[in-house]
Amino acid sequence: MQFHFLGTSAGVPTRTRNVSALVLNPGLASGGLWLFDCGEATQHQLLAATVNAGKIEKIFITHLHGDHIFGLPGLLCSRSMAGSQAPLTLYGPKGLREFVDTTLRLSGSWTSYPLETVEIDAGLVFNDGQLRVSARRLAHPVECYGFRIEQHDIPGALDAARLIAAGVKPGPLFQRLKNGETITLADGRIINGLDYLAPPRPGKTLAIFGDTGPTPAALALARGADVMVHEATLEAAMAQKANSRGHSTSHQAAELARDAGVRRLIITHLSSRYDSAGATALLAECREVFANTALAADFAVFDVRADAFR
Amino acid sequence: MQFHFLGTSAGVPTRTRNVSALVLNPGLASGGLWLFDCGEATQHQLLAATVNAGKIEKIFITHLHGDHIFGLPGLLCSRSMAGSQAPLTLYGPKGLREFVDTTLRLSGSWTSYPLETVEIDAGLVFNDGQLRVSARRLAHPVECYGFRIEQHDIPGALDAARLIAAGVKPGPLFQRLKNGETITLADGRIINGLDYLAPPRPGKTLAIFGDTGPTPAALALARGADVMVHEATLEAAMAQKANSRGHSTSHQAAELARDAGVRRLIITHLSSRYDSAGATALLAECREVFANTALAADFAVFDVRADAFR
Repeated sequence: MQFHFLGTSAGVPTRTRNVSALVLNPGLASGGLWLFDCGEATQHQLLAATVNAGKIEKIFITHLHGDHIFGLPGLLCSRSMAGSQAPLTLYGPKGLREFVDTTLRLSGSWTSYPLETVEIDAGLVFNDGQLRVSARRLAHPVECYGFRIEQHDIPGALDAARLIAAGVKPGPLFQRLKNGETITLADGRIINGLDYLAPPRPGKTLAIFGDTGPTPAALALARGADVMVHEATLEAAMAQKANSRGHSTSHQAAELARDAGVRRLIITHLSSRYDSAGATALLAECREVFANTALAADFAVFDVRADAFR
Repeated sequence: MQFHFLGTSAGVPTRTRNVSALVLNPGLASGGLWLFDCGEATQHQLLAATVNAGKIEKIFITHLHGDHIFGLPGLLCSRSMAGSQAPLTLYGPKGLREFVDTTLRLSGSWTSYPLETVEIDAGLVFNDGQLRVSARRLAHPVECYGFRIEQHDIPGALDAARLIAAGVKPGPLFQRLKNGETITLADGRIINGLDYLAPPRPGKTLAIFGDTGPTPAALALARGADVMVHEATLEAAMAQKANSRGHSTSHQAAELARDAGVRRLIITHLSSRYDSAGATALLAECREVFANTALAADFAVFDVRADAFR
């Protein structure tokens, strides 16, 4: 699993940071990618990052503010003009369907691929064989969600050497044993697959936040996550201004990471007032509270498996 | 008067060319700028070109295809977030108002400045003291316009030296004479301002096209223009493909420039299939037909007063 940040600025683009967009490679067998938010020029950032828009299978929209959705019509159209036929599903708050339908209709556009828009509420978004995604409502002036992504436990490996030593021949039976089934051999012996499987590896848990001020829902969304991606729009001294607009400070993001017991925090969605030095100062503020914090930048890639960012 | 190209690619952005947008400095006393089309990431291009969005007074939209309008919501919002209070007027085909109103409403956005949207038909768009703008319908699958911009004649300079020699003292009388009035001096002599004015300088005429295949309306739009900005989406050998989609080739753009008797042609809106060498080849094709052709590139600036581009 891997994060690829495409936009890390709040509200407006700067010369070095675009507005919000984050690609998650959720480690699917299909190689498919998920996109979280789609600020204006996300398709340009994909082009610069050489990420193929046709590989994006799902787009999650945290809320409908312009810096999170104005890149969506262009991305949908360019994915179509490139001839993609792979289905795409959008998830986001009420109004998302009208936004997509209206912009495509008025621009005379259509998609070459099946496009589905799912307007969500808080709760389970979907749960398939590999991943479970749920949403919680955050504290922002408009309907805004954070997403908790829970990878199902990964089955342990079958101890083939021990099975062979027990006289079981490799072949179709191995697959049934790997699935945890109990089988009867030709000689009448009964073999339980679970006795030959290593314990499952626990799946990873990610928490990807939309814009928000501090809220109790955040704790539940992030609890125990391996990685939490959270906004840090303003510096610690500007809590009143940040919270009055439904945003968080560096310290508040870090306090949440600490209180939720996450392993790692990545901060993003920095105010356009911060240059590179300002951003580094925000990171330092976070680390005062929660050491294992990283600072997102456009085109930065973070591997979920890494134990620390430093 | 000056053109500042911000996007010169057709349909989709490339790594070196963004989708359509063109800033015209029409030489107003206000210093105000006009924008023609507003493809996605036009606000990013303005930022890179250090052109202040707050100085844009009018935006002309040739048609509602995504590569000409998807940057509009973001530009309107960022102009507002920068605190601009200067009025802005949008001109474009039917549907423009719904596009702007819907995207702003659903994104919870508003503007800090008066915003007016004028849905146009072919004919006069407006005529003020300095400029006359008219629109003609072009040949494209959706309602699409080209704009003819005619600068009013510029009054000639007052021959102050000759007036002083005739015994007229500099002062308020000079301004009245400059306005072409006839005045009576204290000694009874009658002075006609027109006798002391150089002939007016004829205003410039510009023709800025939206996407189009060849059409008789184009000739009227461009006739005698000082500068004509026209698409050249595909190379000369691909006329059938270009025209079937409502686009022109290099040769067709150049033939129009020649037949309309314009002084200079700038080609833009090149297919994303063309790299730098391909674009240069399109330019060469144009010059086979019409020598005084220039090739637009993102961030290229053209001065209307220059006699030739080479």
